[in-house]
Amino acid sequence: MKSKNLIDLENLSVKEILDIIDLADKIKANPSEYENACRGKILATLFYEPSTRTRMSFSTAMLRLGGNVIGFDNPQNSSISKGESFKDTLTVVGGYADIIAIRHPLEGAAEAAAMFSDAPVINAGDGGHLHPTQTLTDVVTLYNEKGRLDNLCIGLCGDLKYGRTVHSLIKTMSRFKGNRFVLISTPELTVPQYIKDVMNTAGCEFTEVSGLREAMGELDVLYMTRIQQERFDSDEEYQRQRGVFVLDNKKLELAKKDLRILHPLPRVDEISYEVDDDERAKYFAQTVYGMYARMALFMTMLNGDRSITEKRKSNGLFNALQCMNEHCITRHETYLPKRYREYGDMLVCEYCENTRKREFI
Amino acid sequence: MKSKNLIDLENLSVKEILDIIDLADKIKANPSEYENACRGKILATLFYEPSTRTRMSFSTAMLRLGGNVIGFDNPQNSSISKGESFKDTLTVVGGYADIIAIRHPLEGAAEAAAMFSDAPVINAGDGGHLHPTQTLTDVVTLYNEKGRLDNLCIGLCGDLKYGRTVHSLIKTMSRFKGNRFVLISTPELTVPQYIKDVMNTAGCEFTEVSGLREAMGELDVLYMTRIQQERFDSDEEYQRQRGVFVLDNKKLELAKKDLRILHPLPRVDEISYEVDDDERAKYFAQTVYGMYARMALFMTMLNGDRSITEKRKSNGLFNALQCMNEHCITRHETYLPKRYREYGDMLVCEYCENTRKREFI
Amino acid sequence: MKSKNLIDLENLSVKEILDIIDLADKIKANPSEYENACRGKILATLFYEPSTRTRMSFSTAMLRLGGNVIGFDNPQNSSISKGESFKDTLTVVGGYADIIAIRHPLEGAAEAAAMFSDAPVINAGDGGHLHPTQTLTDVVTLYNEKGRLDNLCIGLCGDLKYGRTVHSLIKTMSRFKGNRFVLISTPELTVPQYIKDVMNTAGCEFTEVSGLREAMGELDVLYMTRIQQERFDSDEEYQRQRGVFVLDNKKLELAKKDLRILHPLPRVDEISYEVDDDERAKYFAQTVYGMYARMALFMTMLNGDRSITEKRKSNGLFNALQCMNEHCITRHETYLPKRYREYGDMLVCEYCENTRKREFI
Repeated sequence: MKSKNLIDLENLSVKEILDIIDLADKIKANPSEYENACRGKILATLFYEPSTRTRMSFSTAMLRLGGNVIGFDNPQNSSISKGESFKDTLTVVGGYADIIAIRHPLEGAAEAAAMFSDAPVINAGDGGHLHPTQTLTDVVTLYNEKGRLDNLCIGLCGDLKYGRTVHSLIKTMSRFKGNRFVLISTPELTVPQYIKDVMNTAGCEFTEVSGLREAMGELDVLYMTRIQQERFDSDEEYQRQRGVFVLDNKKLELAKKDLRILHPLPRVDEISYEVDDDERAKYFAQTVYGMYARMALFMTMLNGDRSITEKRKSNGLFNALQCMNEHCITRHETYLPKRYREYGDMLVCEYCENTRKREFI
Repeated sequence: MKSKNLIDLENLSVKEILDIIDLADKIKANPSEYENACRGKILATLFYEPSTRTRMSFSTAMLRLGGNVIGFDNPQNSSISKGESFKDTLTVVGGYADIIAIRHPLEGAAEAAAMFSDAPVINAGDGGHLHPTQTLTDVVTLYNEKGRLDNLCIGLCGDLKYGRTVHSLIKTMSRFKGNRFVLISTPELTVPQYIKDVMNTAGCEFTEVSGLREAMGELDVLYMTRIQQERFDSDEEYQRQRGVFVLDNKKLELAKKDLRILHPLPRVDEISYEVDDDERAKYFAQTVYGMYARMALFMTMLNGDRSITEKRKSNGLFNALQCMNEHCITRHETYLPKRYREYGDMLVCEYCENTRKREFI
Repeated sequence: MKSKNLIDLENLSVKEILDIIDLADKIKANPSEYENACRGKILATLFYEPSTRTRMSFSTAMLRLGGNVIGFDNPQNSSISKGESFKDTLTVVGGYADIIAIRHPLEGAAEAAAMFSDAPVINAGDGGHLHPTQTLTDVVTLYNEKGRLDNLCIGLCGDLKYGRTVHSLIKTMSRFKGNRFVLISTPELTVPQYIKDVMNTAGCEFTEVSGLREAMGELDVLYMTRIQQERFDSDEEYQRQRGVFVLDNKKLELAKKDLRILHPLPRVDEISYEVDDDERAKYFAQTVYGMYARMALFMTMLNGDRSITEKRKSNGLFNALQCMNEHCITRHETYLPKRYREYGDMLVCEYCENTRKREFI
């Protein structure tokens, strides 16, 4: 890996992603060969918002490589959130641990963490922004279940507007040839324009449909996500529409025999329990693939001969400029240097990737 | 072990119990010989209600065998209780861990957990229903401290009506020859009829007495438990009666020299602190025996060549029938298939063992 | 170590402290040589008040020696604080673990813990009383950063009246030759008289100054601590005075090139973030030294051939006498035997070291 951190899966090359998939497969085939691969290493799981299962997946992955785990997952009860700045916590824990997995409700928090921690940082979810190990999990699952990452017809169902796992999966799968996307959602909750731009730029076809039933027959993969009730205009609208986005055995009758159903979990009611017994349902297997994906990631980040990147310093140019995203970490940890990269006539916040016009400066 | 899970100690044969006791003794005699017995194994402690000490006992046992531990013990703070169904959590964690110890406020939760988890499940307490590793702890303690499990005069004091550890200990000790029980309680809090039936069927004598003093002289074992104040009819009744159920040095003067005092802990005030220094007090030693008992159990469940039982499926016969126990897991996780076994003209819920007449169908 | 426990750093001889510093250095130089030094050992971290980072430091230290960790750090959510007495918890955990690190809001809690635990006890902070591993951290840092523990000019800045880490550091550094102290504080928040007595008795010079600026030039070491706003007489007084106790780059211009800046952390705003990049800032390095200090302490306590001290029993003489410090553990865990040592015409509580005149008996 070029960077010592994993903040955004976009930072990995296709080859680096394939290497991790390949290593995950090797570990899965012979777990006992890797039981000492991280012996003596310590993972810190810094979960500023609770996500018990994600934390368990990271912990299990490190323990199965012979390493150990410290951390917290209920900061409201801990002294961390009250007692000291984000910078101080990350600097100190970066001195204790060999690698850090951080989850935080604010966008850009993992990026900020990497500025202060000597230990490499993995983004385990920063607000609604990024969650790269979920997408790594998804591609490891796809590769194992479909045998390839290209020329797939991939349905994505649910809240495609706000779902960060959906956006990340589209961006990643657009990097492989011949993939086609079927976007299954209400008109209000379809993918944002920049995701359409990604698909267009990559030359990936996509269609938008308004229910599972009409899409089902052509899909190689169905990636289910939840639509939260509060996303609908009214309760009546919710009651009227929800059914067409719920996967059940009836709808599955229309599907291919080798369809694979994924879900980032947790599910609420968008997949009926009856589907669990269908052999095409792979959302539970997916969590096990996720464990192997994280094992491969740990080994790559801890044992690889990566060149440790210089800690970036602000160029000072835009230092007076406050990010306009109120969920950006820089709005809450005010000592953080403002950092923007220029993109055409836009400035992009290097923490949360919120964009603004240059003319506002 | 015939089953891959330990939900109810009744499911173990006397020989299986004796094998675990024997293994616990071997571990206790030579702990260092077993320090790698579970190397590479991961225990998940899923504690849906807090029980810090029970969790520490399980964790310590696994760590002393060279294994590792993941889990949670404050579900109200975690994403688990909110975010997903019991089924999904258990299915996923059963893919991460090699063995699961679950504690849950609802009855039958461990039984339900075993339906979904690929990893074997240990019941670490399901509401007021069962807590088999406590009873395993008790019999390991008795065997070590008395040298035998038969021909003992066993006093049980406190809330014998609701105390699940008392019921389980009576059921288990009734399987050994010549044991005699002295039930020390208020008339309102004596053992339920079905426990008397167990003793009668096994041919075990029992007597009921209304205070510690009159029982003390004949006991080989005294199993103390707490009587909660709210179990008494009034505060006056409580103040009047409580003294006769509190063990102190004065009452101990009436006891045999080789009496052994046990208590499942935590105690409130039913044993005076002064008793702690008496050599017959074994309730603290009991917790250490409990650690060895759990070590032996882990080894038996993880390394034995048990035949993994088929996941049971509902026969559908009584599937429309809701369990009448409102603390039954099936009342809260409504997707669970109803399962009953027939017992004479009764139906017994296979989760919480609540019984109902067949005629109600 | 003479005692099996570390309750108060005063109980260690200078030689014992130097031995720990020496071992910490050896571990730091060759960590891999020590990765199995505590293999098979279990640390219990019993944190009755949250202190996430202190707990992580202890945990990391044990894990890096090959040992393991159990424990809790949110007792309000756990069954511990509700369910059973301090004595019972410590007795039981002392049977599970090989060594215990305890933090508690009440003074004397670690002393009380050591009475009941078979496993050795480390005081990780008992209210405002003692926190010996912080001071051990401080001296390991000083020795490494200054090359010596004597003939140093040590500035201490902040709340010197209530700061337990300041008191402990002065007491410890007074045991080495030629150290001189500069006390930087408001008149209301200077060190208590008994700390002045310690310095006088040891023959250590000290001066009291009212701002960082006037002290800066002569210091070899600057130990920064926080002044809480509520310690000032009024908000105006706080706003007027706070600036002189805040360290920034401007004030650092007056300092020696080989000054070393320490801070027990967490900091609030008493050190500007800009100082972090100064090479003299060692408060983050200090936390890493703290990890090595704790590793050395674990090895010394677990592997040394210490003579296990008898559990002390009260002599009964002053048993009717209640300690006058309402934060003393004996006021809350009322079964604890009262224990005083005589000191001139005073009695000193052996738990919290609160003193009272003998005539009051």
